[in-house]
Amino acid sequence: MIVIVTGMPGSGKSKIVKEFERRGFPSVSMGDLVREETVKRGLELTKENVAKVSIRLRQELGQNAVAKLAVERVKELLKKSSLVVIDGVRSLDEVGTFRGAFPDENIVIVAVHTSPRERFERLKSRGRHDDPRSWEEFEERDWKELKFGIGNVIAMADYMVVNDCDKGEYRKRVRSLVKRILAEHGIEEQHDVESGKESECN
Amino acid sequence: MIVIVTGMPGSGKSKIVKEFERRGFPSVSMGDLVREETVKRGLELTKENVAKVSIRLRQELGQNAVAKLAVERVKELLKKSSLVVIDGVRSLDEVGTFRGAFPDENIVIVAVHTSPRERFERLKSRGRHDDPRSWEEFEERDWKELKFGIGNVIAMADYMVVNDCDKGEYRKRVRSLVKRILAEHGIEEQHDVESGKESECN
Repeated sequence: MIVIVTGMPGSGKSKIVKEFERRGFPSVSMGDLVREETVKRGLELTKENVAKVSIRLRQELGQNAVAKLAVERVKELLKKSSLVVIDGVRSLDEVGTFRGAFPDENIVIVAVHTSPRERFERLKSRGRHDDPRSWEEFEERDWKELKFGIGNVIAMADYMVVNDCDKGEYRKRVRSLVKRILAEHGIEEQHDVESGKESECN
Repeated sequence: MIVIVTGMPGSGKSKIVKEFERRGFPSVSMGDLVREETVKRGLELTKENVAKVSIRLRQELGQNAVAKLAVERVKELLKKSSLVVIDGVRSLDEVGTFRGAFPDENIVIVAVHTSPRERFERLKSRGRHDDPRSWEEFEERDWKELKFGIGNVIAMADYMVVNDCDKGEYRKRVRSLVKRILAEHGIEEQHDVESGKESECN
């Protein structure tokens, strides 16, 4: 089974990916693949070089270059795990690349939604080097994602979690969603994270 | 205040619109405006005529023709109500038309999400004349909406409600969301729907 995790920048995607990882399921980050490729090509890991490698990859492998790189990684991981998470899908076209490469695999899309105002506040306080400092920078970054077609992936999600609450409540929602997905698809956990730990988190 | 309600076909938009109406706030349906315009032009209300009038309106008033028609209706309604709901917005461009026409008005986007599989089942059993009967027809209709840019409106929503439950639970979620929106924006209800009715619904 493949779980595609999507959401706008700063929406809380990584919490979902981490919840699957905590339960023993590996993930592939589309962003990390481009960063790895940048290093492989002997370039320093700067924002400009990563963007340049992104463009070159598309010239070499076509529009869905990063998805194609991810397919290889996912294939490897599916040999050892019944479920693999893909983080950072930005278009239905990329989803189509995965569906084409894994015709016998169950593929579901999980989206997280957070309001623009809330995402802006979070990204501003996160302050990673590529995070927006002004509303204009934030809108520009959002627009870049929307142009890729991420809105379509969100609209067509099989599961949606809303992150309009405090961190503790969001963690609960993510845990309950992940448990539901595993149960609905008959996937057994790799790590037994539930036993004896419920009291800590609820 | 203006509340824009959006969501894919069959997601449960109308329940949100109706909850606002129940509390005394009027709504403008973009779809109804085109149907009214069809009748005004002396044409019979068929799917083909409505599509034809849609195209003609765009030729006459530009890409956001229906939003422009809606602006006039919303202006009228805002004279009598502190909140007006707009149903059926399909692109951020249309949202921009409303923001441009009402620069001093608070405008929020409310989206509802339902999984494609669930929407298909609902539309099939609803069986309105324009509802899909096969998965192919359903995908085609979805794609039409996505091409307008509805995914972007959903991704940029200020509020999101997930309709992945039974009807009773969804009604509760919608009621609680509408109450939250009114409270957060200091809007007083036109009708007192709460008093003495809580016990019926909770």
